[in-house]
Amino acid sequence: MTPAALHDALQHRFSERYSTATAVLERHGKDEAYHAGVPPEAVVFATSTEDVVDVVNLCRTHKAPLIPFGTGTSLEGHINAVRGGISLDLSLMTEVLEVNEEDLDCRVQAGVTRKALNEHLRATGLMFPIDPGADASLGGMTATRASGTNAVRYGTMKDNVLGLTVVMANGDVVRTGGRAPKSSAGYDLTRLMVGSEGTLGVITEIQLRLYGQPEAVSAAVCLFPDIDAAAKTAIMVKQLGVPVARMELVDGASIRAINEADQLGMVEKPHIFFEFHGTKAWVAEQAELTQEIAAELGGEDFEWSTRPEDRSRLWNARHNMFYSVQRMRPGSVGWPTDVCVPISRLADCINQTLEDLSQTSLLAPLVGHVGDGNFHLQYLIDPDNEEELAQARWVNGRMIERAIEMGGTCTGEHGVGHGKIKYLEREHGAPSLAVMASIKRALDPENIMNPGKILSIN
Amino acid sequence: MTPAALHDALQHRFSERYSTATAVLERHGKDEAYHAGVPPEAVVFATSTEDVVDVVNLCRTHKAPLIPFGTGTSLEGHINAVRGGISLDLSLMTEVLEVNEEDLDCRVQAGVTRKALNEHLRATGLMFPIDPGADASLGGMTATRASGTNAVRYGTMKDNVLGLTVVMANGDVVRTGGRAPKSSAGYDLTRLMVGSEGTLGVITEIQLRLYGQPEAVSAAVCLFPDIDAAAKTAIMVKQLGVPVARMELVDGASIRAINEADQLGMVEKPHIFFEFHGTKAWVAEQAELTQEIAAELGGEDFEWSTRPEDRSRLWNARHNMFYSVQRMRPGSVGWPTDVCVPISRLADCINQTLEDLSQTSLLAPLVGHVGDGNFHLQYLIDPDNEEELAQARWVNGRMIERAIEMGGTCTGEHGVGHGKIKYLEREHGAPSLAVMASIKRALDPENIMNPGKILSIN
Repeated sequence: MTPAALHDALQHRFSERYSTATAVLERHGKDEAYHAGVPPEAVVFATSTEDVVDVVNLCRTHKAPLIPFGTGTSLEGHINAVRGGISLDLSLMTEVLEVNEEDLDCRVQAGVTRKALNEHLRATGLMFPIDPGADASLGGMTATRASGTNAVRYGTMKDNVLGLTVVMANGDVVRTGGRAPKSSAGYDLTRLMVGSEGTLGVITEIQLRLYGQPEAVSAAVCLFPDIDAAAKTAIMVKQLGVPVARMELVDGASIRAINEADQLGMVEKPHIFFEFHGTKAWVAEQAELTQEIAAELGGEDFEWSTRPEDRSRLWNARHNMFYSVQRMRPGSVGWPTDVCVPISRLADCINQTLEDLSQTSLLAPLVGHVGDGNFHLQYLIDPDNEEELAQARWVNGRMIERAIEMGGTCTGEHGVGHGKIKYLEREHGAPSLAVMASIKRALDPENIMNPGKILSIN
Repeated sequence: MTPAALHDALQHRFSERYSTATAVLERHGKDEAYHAGVPPEAVVFATSTEDVVDVVNLCRTHKAPLIPFGTGTSLEGHINAVRGGISLDLSLMTEVLEVNEEDLDCRVQAGVTRKALNEHLRATGLMFPIDPGADASLGGMTATRASGTNAVRYGTMKDNVLGLTVVMANGDVVRTGGRAPKSSAGYDLTRLMVGSEGTLGVITEIQLRLYGQPEAVSAAVCLFPDIDAAAKTAIMVKQLGVPVARMELVDGASIRAINEADQLGMVEKPHIFFEFHGTKAWVAEQAELTQEIAAELGGEDFEWSTRPEDRSRLWNARHNMFYSVQRMRPGSVGWPTDVCVPISRLADCINQTLEDLSQTSLLAPLVGHVGDGNFHLQYLIDPDNEEELAQARWVNGRMIERAIEMGGTCTGEHGVGHGKIKYLEREHGAPSLAVMASIKRALDPENIMNPGKILSIN
């Protein structure tokens, strides 16, 4: 328990932007993971970097944990108050601070969501392409190194954050990076902060790279006889260097989910959703090449949707899949997980995982950002059924071991939170974790910044 | 001076791979910068990660500085033994450890040079595009976050290093990153090491991203009436999103240098060298669009070189420019420098810098990776002429201040070494430097790893 003096000070400083209401605490202690929620002791709503500095200084003085909160859509318990403490909600920091159209960059406060930014940009002809399933805050996306369906073409947050404003544990406000397209001027603190999940500092502003909206967009859906044919198509498209903008594998079970949720009448077999961006001629050339590859590997029914409203319907269905899948088994809890492997191993990794799954009674639809070697399972489990949980743990553990064994990673885009801490040593080795721990201790000696996440430092 | 016991131990361990011969020391204490050389006290030639571990452990035991050495082609005194100590030469570590053609990645020892790697890859149809002027080692390129003419399309070392093996100051061998196309599994130690200039650890192996050789390549040279027209063309090409592979500005003085060195008969006015990569149709479309833009902004004589030998001749001339420029004034020393700004400020930054230059008697040809907002000056100075040195310092200081003022950086690709330490605080601010120093102290408490570079920690 954090001391009463801290709460008094926070209440005094933030008055109605300080809350201990049960509903508020619960909402701030439970993300979209299957992990049980762990509410914080209080929530403070910041509206400026100065607010954040004050909260950090008060928490440090009282040695209280501090957990940054964006939209609460993380997937590995990132926001759970596993050591108690204060949730620092940044969702009111929604200002787009600057848009530099000529330089294709912008600066936003941490609480701006990806959809809000794109809405803001609409008139400029620019876009920010990184799109995790949820309409997450850009601060949270930065902190978890998020990606999504466009990463195969536009990269992840690692590639699209140019600079940051971060409040460190000692209360210092640090500016990292800059607006130059490249720099060799010192340690890359920007990339160190991207993916640090609030454990090294609180991100309050983000300088982002933007892109021109493509002159032409073309989308297609292709049906495959089995997962193997689909995965092999993705591998070949990637290896031939087709700069596909999106290439999403959706298995039969997931198609069933979106058929139900979105009234689509698709065949309940594996599909790949493709999207191509570029000039008209270039898009046509990419699409033709991809169609040839798919046909050669058993793809059927290559269906084009060139009308924007058809495209939107399809991609909205894909983006809402997390929720659609959840509805397939009322009363169940969805346990979303992801791994990522070198693309040559993708078909093997998926097939061996599905083989494991077939030995259980679990329903677990599979989708994948397959151009990146990244796929997701979503176990639909009855949280009170120990056997189901044990089965999911078994499949999941083996899938992660397999991915690491294949040269891959225990998480391609969801992050570590507290759910995947136990796999980090297997993936990186003890010396690498020791380096991470040294950095954590150097920058946060009191361990107040989202403790118990990424590293198991007490 | 380091203790005799260290030298005895190194000589005992490495015998003929340990040297204190004057010529060897001098070669290891002077890079291609104008800074005076500072030779180390001894040189050890490592052939394995284990060798490196032993050198690090001995240096730590004896509190002796240790300076990693690749090809000695750095440009800001990175290898100067400014605190004495041992130069650790990795140039014998030349093994390409694996090439994964299907996944477009490879793993190399730190001493493999970029040209050696591309020679090794030739039969596979793959390539590694990052190309600083020198045929630098991939370890050195990683340590300095190098880029080059292809960065506008393929990114810098930051974007193309997937993982590393690094020997830390405590002797631990750390593996960072991996082969998955993306990961959210913990702190991004790879990116922290890229650009750390040997101050955090010694890089011994590098996992690199590779690319398919483009189906079609097309190159062109375009003459411009002045720098302004050329810079504005680069800006427009970039803003319209043409994925040009190379876009190099070469000023009239630099053209004179390569005319002399390479027997080219080019008009001694500003030119842009373009290159386009892709499928045949796509390359043609990019080239046509670029030619239209250039023509509209005053470009004349858009000359195509589609024959590979013509292209090679041109690009070799560009790559050797550093040396060709040097020969323009026999007996002079070349002082190469670079800055990088948001592309909208590029023309202003160049013009104001040339205005300063015109107020001096200096000869300083200008070239630029203008698609990245990055340009170089090479002051040709008589090292014994204090007035010339003072003029170069004046132009350089003002150029860097101007670049930072415009939202840019004191170095786009050369790095900090000891030559640009004084500009880092101006660029990043004191709190940011304090974070860098905390990390340095945490990972290298004895300050043995290339001390006196990037940070001015004693």
